[in-house]
Amino acid sequence: MQLYFNPASPFVRKVRVTAHELGLSERIELIGIMLTPVSPHDALRSRNPIGKIPALVLDEETVLYDSPVICEYLDALAGGGRMFPAAGVARWTALRRQAIADGIMDAAVLTRYEEAVRPKELRWQDWVDAQFLKIRTALDSLERENLADAFDIGSISIACALSYLDLRFASEGWRTSRPRLTEWAAATAQRPSLTATALAVP
Amino acid sequence: MQLYFNPASPFVRKVRVTAHELGLSERIELIGIMLTPVSPHDALRSRNPIGKIPALVLDEETVLYDSPVICEYLDALAGGGRMFPAAGVARWTALRRQAIADGIMDAAVLTRYEEAVRPKELRWQDWVDAQFLKIRTALDSLERENLADAFDIGSISIACALSYLDLRFASEGWRTSRPRLTEWAAATAQRPSLTATALAVP
Repeated sequence: MQLYFNPASPFVRKVRVTAHELGLSERIELIGIMLTPVSPHDALRSRNPIGKIPALVLDEETVLYDSPVICEYLDALAGGGRMFPAAGVARWTALRRQAIADGIMDAAVLTRYEEAVRPKELRWQDWVDAQFLKIRTALDSLERENLADAFDIGSISIACALSYLDLRFASEGWRTSRPRLTEWAAATAQRPSLTATALAVP
Repeated sequence: MQLYFNPASPFVRKVRVTAHELGLSERIELIGIMLTPVSPHDALRSRNPIGKIPALVLDEETVLYDSPVICEYLDALAGGGRMFPAAGVARWTALRRQAIADGIMDAAVLTRYEEAVRPKELRWQDWVDAQFLKIRTALDSLERENLADAFDIGSISIACALSYLDLRFASEGWRTSRPRLTEWAAATAQRPSLTATALAVP
């Protein structure tokens, strides 16, 4: 399998962490690319029409996207029910937490585009503020969750979202007033799947 | 169950169509709200920390989001395996198509924010062009898919994406040079689940 990859993408990292947890990392070849919405990557776009990473190439005719689909596919490939609980409350909790974390990442990536890609004279502070309201509200909700109850795709997604904030928005200081989330994140960051896949600026 | 709702949201419509197909519509009470990213809705935000619709309230303590999670929950509630194939190629195809359609809707909604919400002097044509490249590439890929092979969450998502383009971007003329997708959309639009849930400007 081939994975379109960039070391700064939290969505790609979700896939890499999931693969590592499932023992599938060595079956995935990374294809490193650079892209932004306004400088798309044509080879990727011919594989994933939405033009985003991650995209997982299974064979000439089959490509999977986006990150929730790829991660669930890998889970099934490893037997199923490991990072994606098969049914019931555990499944909806894991998927809901993944949605919160993906929402944090979406808001953070949109903020990054606003502050680093859009021409300076066209930036809109209200938009950045609105994205940060989402991020802060979501972090507050995670502070109230009992994250230690499981390790699944929800946990993986949250860990990737928090480390993306550390990479791009360290000055936000998300740990302040969120001691439980801070403690959970510190413990989770020690897992081999996370230490092996640290985010980096390419 | 209560569903936070706006009649112009294609993501909310996915949930309503899914509920209709599963015979669950009458168990869902709609809570109509107005919001944009820069004018969030506080009651919604207390239920879904990312602040987006749809959000499905199951009880005082349990709220589900985003649209893929809600739709799969409803499918399970109706017995499972109806709009979400349980396993194998059918599942990955349905989820991949849902991701294409959600990607079209994301790009279209971001364009809408750029053109209708952001102050005129801060708009960036390259951003709009980049979103439309995603939309057009995705539509071209759908033209090549054999959509008549199934009716599932992939089909529902695509139908909602196309009708959102009709609502907000009619001048794009997405049907031009896409005869198979045009024919599929016309036939699909006749389903009671779609006629009962037409998008509208509030």
